[in-house]
Amino acid sequence: MAKIAVLGYGVVGSGTVEVFYKNKENLEKKAGEPLDIKYILDVRDFPDSPYADKFVKDFNVILNDPEISVVSEVIGGLKPAYDFVKSALTAGKSVVTSNKELVAAKGAELLKIAKEKNVNFFFEASVGGGIPIIKPIHACLEANEIDEIAGILNGTTNFILTKMIRDGIGFDEALKTAQELGYAERNPTADVEGFDACRKICILASLAFGRHVYPESVHTEGITKITLDDVSYIDSYNAKIKLIGCVRREDKGEISIGVFPAVIKDESQLAGVNDVFNAILVRGDATGDVVFYGKGAGKLPTASAVVSDIISAVKHSDTSRSLTWADSEQTFVRPFEEFTCANYIRVSIKDSESAKATVKELFGDVEYLSTKGSNSGELAFVTDVMREKDALDKCAGLPDGFGVPVRIRVLDY
Amino acid sequence: MAKIAVLGYGVVGSGTVEVFYKNKENLEKKAGEPLDIKYILDVRDFPDSPYADKFVKDFNVILNDPEISVVSEVIGGLKPAYDFVKSALTAGKSVVTSNKELVAAKGAELLKIAKEKNVNFFFEASVGGGIPIIKPIHACLEANEIDEIAGILNGTTNFILTKMIRDGIGFDEALKTAQELGYAERNPTADVEGFDACRKICILASLAFGRHVYPESVHTEGITKITLDDVSYIDSYNAKIKLIGCVRREDKGEISIGVFPAVIKDESQLAGVNDVFNAILVRGDATGDVVFYGKGAGKLPTASAVVSDIISAVKHSDTSRSLTWADSEQTFVRPFEEFTCANYIRVSIKDSESAKATVKELFGDVEYLSTKGSNSGELAFVTDVMREKDALDKCAGLPDGFGVPVRIRVLDY
Repeated sequence: MAKIAVLGYGVVGSGTVEVFYKNKENLEKKAGEPLDIKYILDVRDFPDSPYADKFVKDFNVILNDPEISVVSEVIGGLKPAYDFVKSALTAGKSVVTSNKELVAAKGAELLKIAKEKNVNFFFEASVGGGIPIIKPIHACLEANEIDEIAGILNGTTNFILTKMIRDGIGFDEALKTAQELGYAERNPTADVEGFDACRKICILASLAFGRHVYPESVHTEGITKITLDDVSYIDSYNAKIKLIGCVRREDKGEISIGVFPAVIKDESQLAGVNDVFNAILVRGDATGDVVFYGKGAGKLPTASAVVSDIISAVKHSDTSRSLTWADSEQTFVRPFEEFTCANYIRVSIKDSESAKATVKELFGDVEYLSTKGSNSGELAFVTDVMREKDALDKCAGLPDGFGVPVRIRVLDY
Repeated sequence: MAKIAVLGYGVVGSGTVEVFYKNKENLEKKAGEPLDIKYILDVRDFPDSPYADKFVKDFNVILNDPEISVVSEVIGGLKPAYDFVKSALTAGKSVVTSNKELVAAKGAELLKIAKEKNVNFFFEASVGGGIPIIKPIHACLEANEIDEIAGILNGTTNFILTKMIRDGIGFDEALKTAQELGYAERNPTADVEGFDACRKICILASLAFGRHVYPESVHTEGITKITLDDVSYIDSYNAKIKLIGCVRREDKGEISIGVFPAVIKDESQLAGVNDVFNAILVRGDATGDVVFYGKGAGKLPTASAVVSDIISAVKHSDTSRSLTWADSEQTFVRPFEEFTCANYIRVSIKDSESAKATVKELFGDVEYLSTKGSNSGELAFVTDVMREKDALDKCAGLPDGFGVPVRIRVLDY
């Protein structure tokens, strides 16, 4: 009999308990032994819950109960989750978590403790919600050298961009709709500024390349500056704007990593990912491109990933032996100004012919875009692949009359 | 040190050896111990191969060598693969295979032997080539009751259909192109008649629903009767024709299962899967729809899945405890005439108004389709959801003047 504690009875926590009891019989068959949730930790009272007798307010009750072998942390945030998880692992209990902030900030340290204590630390639910991605990268694509990972990792921003593209409404209005539907928080910063996607690509990068990538080292841009003008030009390029988190293996043991809105051609599997859905593309040297698609958030999808990790932890999967990454050296993440990609650029102009001559001089041959709403006072074009630094320099080198150029990176997935 | 034998040095076998030695160092880290391929079994000689000293022609050399703990069967077909695999498992060696014919025909028996002998029988490469799908269904989506699985499981037919849709060429010409490019065999029957896709959906169904589904019990249709007229009408319906293998949980512990060309709306993630790519949609009660996409065949993608299974087998993953399905009872697969879906139907007509009256009488309200090439001598429409039996009866009930109706099922994924 394996006894489990669930920390936090919010959206994911209550979903975890719900999925667990709904499929308990099946889960026990898969785990190979009886299972039960013994404690649910929450500061609030739930007197009317069918699980009322399981609620505790003091984490030490769980920590000091030798019967508890698996702790499921679904509180979110660093405080108090980090202390709870660290104590649980140190006490020889396996931990599963949906907490991307925790894994992105403390993954290397917590995995190290788990290894020393010969217990598991699993976090499938921290990236992609219900989409299996951590385990498949770790246990299915292991015969590959992974060259790149690129993902639509945040459902809120993908919903907003989808609304803008489909309904032709601006960012502010689309955000408001997302908030009304409960897809965006009242304070949407973590989503719309790319911080949430940043944590997730850090976790995937750490997993794929074996060294911890900290969010602070990742160039991160959100979608707040995307305009309908750009949506329209990019539509004429047979492409979509998506908020992409991507990491790429470079030479000398380095990686390039970033989160930013990007132009994705329609033939890419990522271009057709709409609304709150997420998708993650993994490019391996043997498999080529593999894409995982599904609901990246939500109560039951996320809970499903948490419960699956609970079963894996109960089965004492030998994953703990190999699921690990080291703390990283400064030099591991290449400066973002070395990142290479093509660029969509939109500038103000006065005279088309002379402007095109200036563009050619600076950027070489480019592909000009047009759109229904294109006006004679601007030019939009797509450049060849170049270094970020060169793109910045060239944009800075545009004469005064060009205004402040809008630039969106073009990725090839 | 784990010693491995590879049975068969064809496309997948040579790929397996290549991927293994290319990433050996990394694989050993993941397996937690040194690894080597000791034998390669093939009836042919490869005197110039760098692995010439590993070749053997007699399977008994492998079977009787106690050093061999993992056997990788990549010969294909039932004979002699079935005997080899059965003997290896019986002798207490783990087996990994890419052989869909073997798993679809003998999976339950071989899994039973593996369990009795406490060894592993893995077959990730048998479905979806390099796409992780067996392990994710088994070890990541286990907290779900799986309601449906639907997949584009055969790259050859998907390439042919993509050619027909994109280039407007007929089936015969598209098949010829596929053969010239090496995507279709000289005898393309197994692909174009749906037999290959049938084996794969049988494996997925057995895995998801816990009882062996034999290919003989599955309603299977190929794509040879698909015409450009239908492609064009279905295009006007904002949909694509795809060869789909699907299985659905029904009540009373039964499943519905079939392989047939189907109309898939463009907003589905399956509609955008083109060329030789495969994709598998898994609909779980907690996760909702999850889609796995990638190269469904090819030397290195398939080899990557085989090598990943080798590592899992070496790590003595505890999967053997739970990866299993029972031999099934007759009643498990519901008769296909009870299958329910909407239908695209195209008929010959003389007079549009009277024909529409007849259609309404038989099929109720339908959605009429039109197309650039639509001629006044025919009608195409999409019906409501109905039982297969009723669709057949209604089509049979059309008066003589309607000709032989073309019917393609419409699926909602």
